[in-house]
Amino acid sequence: MYREQIKVLDCTIRDGGLMNNHTFDDRFVREIYRTISRAGIDYMEIGYKNSRKLFESGKYGAWKFCEDEAILRVIDGIESRTKLSVMVDVGRVDMNDIQPKKKSPVSMIRTACYVQDVDKAIHMANEFAGKGYETAVNLMAISKVRETDLDECLAQLEEECRCDVVYLVDSNGSLYQENIEYLLKKAKGIVKTKEIGIHAHNNQQLAFSNTIEAIIHNANYLDSTIFGMGRAAGNCPTELLLGFLKNPKFDIRPVLDFISREMVPLSKRVEWGYVIPYAITGMLDEHPRLALKLREGDQKENYREFYESLSGSAGID
Amino acid sequence: MYREQIKVLDCTIRDGGLMNNHTFDDRFVREIYRTISRAGIDYMEIGYKNSRKLFESGKYGAWKFCEDEAILRVIDGIESRTKLSVMVDVGRVDMNDIQPKKKSPVSMIRTACYVQDVDKAIHMANEFAGKGYETAVNLMAISKVRETDLDECLAQLEEECRCDVVYLVDSNGSLYQENIEYLLKKAKGIVKTKEIGIHAHNNQQLAFSNTIEAIIHNANYLDSTIFGMGRAAGNCPTELLLGFLKNPKFDIRPVLDFISREMVPLSKRVEWGYVIPYAITGMLDEHPRLALKLREGDQKENYREFYESLSGSAGID
Repeated sequence: MYREQIKVLDCTIRDGGLMNNHTFDDRFVREIYRTISRAGIDYMEIGYKNSRKLFESGKYGAWKFCEDEAILRVIDGIESRTKLSVMVDVGRVDMNDIQPKKKSPVSMIRTACYVQDVDKAIHMANEFAGKGYETAVNLMAISKVRETDLDECLAQLEEECRCDVVYLVDSNGSLYQENIEYLLKKAKGIVKTKEIGIHAHNNQQLAFSNTIEAIIHNANYLDSTIFGMGRAAGNCPTELLLGFLKNPKFDIRPVLDFISREMVPLSKRVEWGYVIPYAITGMLDEHPRLALKLREGDQKENYREFYESLSGSAGID
Repeated sequence: MYREQIKVLDCTIRDGGLMNNHTFDDRFVREIYRTISRAGIDYMEIGYKNSRKLFESGKYGAWKFCEDEAILRVIDGIESRTKLSVMVDVGRVDMNDIQPKKKSPVSMIRTACYVQDVDKAIHMANEFAGKGYETAVNLMAISKVRETDLDECLAQLEEECRCDVVYLVDSNGSLYQENIEYLLKKAKGIVKTKEIGIHAHNNQQLAFSNTIEAIIHNANYLDSTIFGMGRAAGNCPTELLLGFLKNPKFDIRPVLDFISREMVPLSKRVEWGYVIPYAITGMLDEHPRLALKLREGDQKENYREFYESLSGSAGID
C-alpha cells in the first residue's frame, strides 16, 4: 500500500508508558527516538502532558508530564525529521503549561476524550491550534458509543474544531474489520475537511488488520507501537505496519534492530500482548482494566472464571 | 457471525505437532479431545497419517503416524460429537494403511498438496472418498501460486475430485485481507459444488482476521488451533474464533480452561507465535523454514541481519 498522505505515528513511549508508569529512562527514550528517526517515521508520541498538580510526581516517570526540558534532553544531538507529539486528557492538563509552538520541541498535541466530553476537547484543541500546534482529537472507546451520539460528535468536530485529525480509538480492542469499514465510511462522510486517524488495540490480534482496513477506507494517520507495546494487549506493531506500507520513506531495519536489542529484553520484565484475559475483555467489548487487575493477583491464570464473571455465564453448563 | 454451515476444525495436535515432532503424550491428547468435544467443535485433526516405511519411528511421536490403535486409546470413554480428521501429504502415505471408513475412528482425511501436485491429490482424495471418508484437498503455499495455475487447479478439483472441501492454505502467513477476499471470490466462482476452507498462519498477526475475511466471503470450513499453536507463528487461535462465531453450539469455556492448565505451561517449553523472524518471512512471503532454523542457533535474535539476508537489502543504507 502506497499513498503519499499516509503518516505513521509511533506511540510506544506514550501507550507503552501506561504499563510502567512512564518510567522509561533517558537512554531508552533517546534510543527509540534515534530508531524512529532513522526509520523515517513521521511522528513520535513521547508521552502525556499531565499537570504535576494532579499527580504525585514520585509515582511516575518523566513521560507522564513531558516537560520541554526532559524532551530536549533526549532528542539533543540526534538527527531527525520525525515530529514529536504529546497527548493530553481532558481535565488533566494545565493549559498554562502549554508554551507557544515556536518555543517548544513538540509539533503536535493530541487531545484524548470520550465522545461525551467532545465540547471540552474542541475547546482545548482550538487553543492548541491557536498556539501554533498541529492538533488531533482522539475519540476513545469508540465501540461503546451510541450511533446518534457519534454522528453528532463527528459533525461538531467538523464544524467547530480546528484540529487537523480526528482519530477513532478502539480502546477495548473489540472491533472487527467490518466495524472498522463501517466507522471509517461514516467518519469520512461527516468529517470532510480533516484527516481521519486510527488507533487500534490488539486484544484479539486485530490491531494490525484493523489498521489495514482503516487504510483501505482512507484513514491517513496510523498509530503503532514497536513490538506492539502498549496498554494491556498493546497496539498495532510498528514493524508490521512498515512491512505493509510501501512508501520508500520508511526503513524497517532500525526498528528490527531496536526490537532485538531493547524490546525483547523489556518484554521479559513488563507484560503486554496476547494474554488471554485481555483477549476476553476484547471479545466481550469491555475495558481492559479488570483484566489488568486480574494479572496483578494470584488468580491471573483463571481464564474460565474471569470469562464467566464478565459474561454472566457462570453456572450455565 | 452465525451461519449454520460453518464448521470449525481444530488442528492443534496436527499443526502444533510440527513444533515437537508429534510427541504429545496420550494424557495431553485425551485432554484436548475432551476439551474440543465439550466446546462443540466440529472436527479435531489429530495428526498425520504418514507411512512408517518413510520415517524413522524413533524420531517422532505417535501423531505423525496416527494408527487407529493410538487414536482409539486417546478417545476411549470420552463422550463426543467431534469428528476426527487426519492429514496426509502427497507421496508420504501408504494407501494400504487406510482402512475402509467403517473400520476406522477417523471421519475425514485431508490431502495436503502444492498446486503442481494436484493430480496426485485428486487421485488420493478420490480413493479416500471411495473408502467412505469425508475428504478435503488443502492447497498449500497459495500466496506463491501463479494465477493461471491456480485457476486450472481449482477447475480440476471442481470437475475431477470427489472431495467435499477445497482449502486455501496461507503457508507463509503473507496474505492480507484484500488477498483473502480476492482468492475466496475466485475459489467460490470456480469450485461451485464444494465447500471452501481456510487455513491461515499467523506470522503477521493476521490469521484470525484473514479467517474472518474468508468467512465474510463464504468459506465454511475454518482451521484453528488452541492458543494459536502451530508451525512457527502458528495459526488462527481457536479461542478467538469461538469468541467471534455466534453459533450456540460452541462453548469457549473449556478451551479457556485448557489454555490456562495446559497451553500456557507448554508455551514456556515450545516456541511458537509472534516471533520477529517469523513475521519477517511472512512480510517477505517466504516459507518459515529459514526462520525456524535461525531460532535454533545463536543468531536467533539477529533480526536485522536476517531481514537483510532475505530481502537482499544488506549494505544499502
